[in-house]
Amino acid sequence: MTDLAAALQFDAEGLIPAIAQQHDTGQVLMLAWMNREAVEETIATGRVCYWSRSRRRLWRKGETSGQWQRLVEMRLDCDNDALLLKVDQQGVACHTGRRTCFFHKVEDGRVEVAEPVLIDPATLYG
Amino acid sequence: MTDLAAALQFDAEGLIPAIAQQHDTGQVLMLAWMNREAVEETIATGRVCYWSRSRRRLWRKGETSGQWQRLVEMRLDCDNDALLLKVDQQGVACHTGRRTCFFHKVEDGRVEVAEPVLIDPATLYG
Repeated sequence: MTDLAAALQFDAEGLIPAIAQQHDTGQVLMLAWMNREAVEETIATGRVCYWSRSRRRLWRKGETSGQWQRLVEMRLDCDNDALLLKVDQQGVACHTGRRTCFFHKVEDGRVEVAEPVLIDPATLYG
Repeated sequence: MTDLAAALQFDAEGLIPAIAQQHDTGQVLMLAWMNREAVEETIATGRVCYWSRSRRRLWRKGETSGQWQRLVEMRLDCDNDALLLKVDQQGVACHTGRRTCFFHKVEDGRVEVAEPVLIDPATLYG
């Protein structure tokens, strides 16, 4: 066994990409970024905390929308530079009100919306 | 509908992260990177092609190991800056001979191996 803190490989900006996957259905919900503090807080609290690159601060997923992610299992890849978070997503993962952020389906060089809006974003952030 | 080429948001290095997920079981296999050429080739051929950041060249997954990925479906996220590839993985995704690259399970601040080696890496790259 290896110490997690020593194993984690962050990029030049101190970040590591984290995939969130619904633990029971296997649906991939989103890809976001974590810094060391976000990884540590997520483990300590069991609630997923990312690093928001646009807001440049810790982003406790659901802090505004109520759409939390409970951490079920954390995995690290072979190069120690990507995380897989098996989570239990409360409500919807996407700020558009869709269950997953991966709602754009690519077909014949074009992008089309392939997932329904489950919650009006105005309700989430209104 | 939107044109894919126009929609794709690459980072400062011209790359976009791509999650590979086994299309039927839902297992997340790996996270790698694509440039525009890799995205286009993957769509054109139906075989997944990444950009190798370490080798700084196109990386036709399986070109050495024979462990190809057939593209089943491509998805793009809400911000257009992450791809989800639903694939049919031939054999194993990981260069260590494991089915998935996410074989490190994080537990109590430590990392332990949680997936078996299915193919001896010496066979894949020998």
